Amino acid sequence: MTRHDAVEVIIAKRDGAELTDSQIDWVIDAYTRGDVADEQMSALAMAILLNGMNRREISRWTAAMIASGERMDFSTLSRPTADKHSTGGVGDKITLPLAPLVAACGVAVPQLSGRGLGHTGGTLDKLESVPGWRAALTNAEMMSQLESVGAVICAAGDGLARADKKLYALRDVTGTVEAIPLIASSIMSKKIAEGTGSLVLDVKVGTGAFMKSVDLARELASTMVELGTDAGVHTVALLTDMSTPLGLTAGNAIEVEESVEVLAGGGPADVVELTLALAREMLAGAGVTGVDPAAALADGSAMDAWNDMIRAQGGDPAAPMAVARESQVVTAPASGTLTRLDAMAVGLAAWRLGAGRARQGDAVQAGAGVRWHARPGDRVTAGAPLFTLLTDEPDRFERALDSLEGGYDIVADDSTGPAPYSPAPLLIDRIS
Amino acid sequence: MTRHDAVEVIIAKRDGAELTDSQIDWVIDAYTRGDVADEQMSALAMAILLNGMNRREISRWTAAMIASGERMDFSTLSRPTADKHSTGGVGDKITLPLAPLVAACGVAVPQLSGRGLGHTGGTLDKLESVPGWRAALTNAEMMSQLESVGAVICAAGDGLARADKKLYALRDVTGTVEAIPLIASSIMSKKIAEGTGSLVLDVKVGTGAFMKSVDLARELASTMVELGTDAGVHTVALLTDMSTPLGLTAGNAIEVEESVEVLAGGGPADVVELTLALAREMLAGAGVTGVDPAAALADGSAMDAWNDMIRAQGGDPAAPMAVARESQVVTAPASGTLTRLDAMAVGLAAWRLGAGRARQGDAVQAGAGVRWHARPGDRVTAGAPLFTLLTDEPDRFERALDSLEGGYDIVADDSTGPAPYSPAPLLIDRIS
Repeated sequence: MTRHDAVEVIIAKRDGAELTDSQIDWVIDAYTRGDVADEQMSALAMAILLNGMNRREISRWTAAMIASGERMDFSTLSRPTADKHSTGGVGDKITLPLAPLVAACGVAVPQLSGRGLGHTGGTLDKLESVPGWRAALTNAEMMSQLESVGAVICAAGDGLARADKKLYALRDVTGTVEAIPLIASSIMSKKIAEGTGSLVLDVKVGTGAFMKSVDLARELASTMVELGTDAGVHTVALLTDMSTPLGLTAGNAIEVEESVEVLAGGGPADVVELTLALAREMLAGAGVTGVDPAAALADGSAMDAWNDMIRAQGGDPAAPMAVARESQVVTAPASGTLTRLDAMAVGLAAWRLGAGRARQGDAVQAGAGVRWHARPGDRVTAGAPLFTLLTDEPDRFERALDSLEGGYDIVADDSTGPAPYSPAPLLIDRIS
Repeated sequence: MTRHDAVEVIIAKRDGAELTDSQIDWVIDAYTRGDVADEQMSALAMAILLNGMNRREISRWTAAMIASGERMDFSTLSRPTADKHSTGGVGDKITLPLAPLVAACGVAVPQLSGRGLGHTGGTLDKLESVPGWRAALTNAEMMSQLESVGAVICAAGDGLARADKKLYALRDVTGTVEAIPLIASSIMSKKIAEGTGSLVLDVKVGTGAFMKSVDLARELASTMVELGTDAGVHTVALLTDMSTPLGLTAGNAIEVEESVEVLAGGGPADVVELTLALAREMLAGAGVTGVDPAAALADGSAMDAWNDMIRAQGGDPAAPMAVARESQVVTAPASGTLTRLDAMAVGLAAWRLGAGRARQGDAVQAGAGVRWHARPGDRVTAGAPLFTLLTDEPDRFERALDSLEGGYDIVADDSTGPAPYSPAPLLIDRIS
């Protein structure tokens, strides 16, 4: 590998130049080895955030991050593989019903997931509220479970995209998270290194999402689809709404329960709609046609796959789930139509109740979270429950209530105010 | 002091906002204390470099850096004070004759200087080639010498503008040196904290200078004059040429010898011109009128002040200076007129011969450097010496010769080439 100098690479990007392949390979490798210091990489990240990278640079950056760690290989499995990644939203439990559903339709789902940080929950945190379930699997256990059950949701090992692990933590404390080239390469380096044959990206847009505007979300989605395609992974992205939280719950155990309702053929309509849309994309991406995932929800085969998946990782799907020690109900202040429920407000409330963590390594409460009793478009009655707040620590209620303040609108029956609610579509765009 | 969050401050500047006074005060204080990490400050520095700071922000940033350390106070001295700062050039020994000259004219000169890094020499490195001379003085020694001799050139203590010391080292390794707000605040925080009553800035422009264009140099000069004025220090800037090196020497001992020639009433015309121009500005800034510094060169009083200044810091002005163990002569390849002598080429050659250091803390050679035997406009004769290269380590000659390659032009007597040499002015502009 050609040796470069960190200051040379930083100055090139700072002054608006394209980084060469050789500069990118070197800087990622040297950063992984510790020869480029954190303060140098953060200056480079800021220059990338402000001056951008073109498609070749992002593609090479991603490849260099993949090369910094190990790669997995599922090509020996007897069935095709498909994975899904969500950029993160409130009440986004979709992975939980989706992985067993797709497995029940004949496609293996190797879902390496993370823990939550901030107002969006983490898939592993949710599953860890299932008694006995464990997130850590060896590669051999993962392969074996993929063959036998067809679905694995587990913690990503330390070996994949080592540079990304280091860079992600750095970006978090240096104001350099919001750079599309860095976001796209971070996500895609892990997904490509994981070795999935096809990938569906759920790119969230709205107040509760990382991307607040459709234009930015579309740019991120296009960048990731290009990166996947360049790396030989069949990649499709859906842009989906995250102005409103998904379903009726945000938390850990309560989101598992809602996911099980969906697997039982029920559950909130939006969760079912998005789960089926993503399942169809994953099946198509894996080349499986003529299978209707809705049937797998109706006939119990998806539920069977869920039970198998939970048991294979030590969990007891029939065991009672954790219940928060304390609850508090917020009632509707007026009768009328709920016209807005802000995803960020709900996400912050769930986080402050203890469902999420403020710092890496903090524990989360299995039972904590927010349950809402109406979705936009629903009628509400003055004095009837609108939210139920759940936590083990009652001193958390006050700040959770603060974050719900102004987080919803009710148009009263006798109002001459804004026009009645017209629902925003859940599926905004598809990019392939 | 209001507590802020490093990421909040970084993101504000990253997104093009003005930093508040409170954000600036906090981030500088927290960085000095180590509560803002290097990787956070480097990201902020890159955002400042790319998005800029306005006059209020730069002024506050400078004030916060001053507040991070101690301030000196010369108001108890019996005479006014004036200081000079050069942004750095090749052969720039001006401080050496200037400080005693101004002292001989009745104004005290408290010159806190640094060591060289890269192709421009450091004033302390030059003076340390005088046998016995020491750069480190206590504040009490400095005050006493200012009262008795009137001139001190010594190392800046650790106490002034502590934040700047840390930030300067960080910028050096993170590609964030070239930001006018950061350069201006770095220079001015030290000069204002030093407590001089008036200040003259010698802002160099040209190939051998940090600022390659007159526009950038003027912007830097204006910014620094504003900062000084805002802080109550009478501040003037001269923009001076640094496309051609100053005088006929670049090195350590050889620049001291050239300075002594100037103090003896001789020396190269450009060194004399710039020394007198800066002396007149310093005298005027300190409110001293009716004194002609040229007379102080002619009557020996400036030389007396030099001898006193050197002796007060342990040096022997009459002792023989170091001589390089090896020398090599470069002869003129043709007879004609020297029309260009590139400051950067000469500076690099001197540096590579051992007059400068590659890393902080490296030793420099007292005898190393470059002597040139003609200045632009002078006639040269084929085969006669054009440069003398001086070093203790003969393996350094080759790389020094490389850097001189292409660093000068001779228009031969019989040439039909470019028009004959028309000298560029040494003094380009004055900003007050």
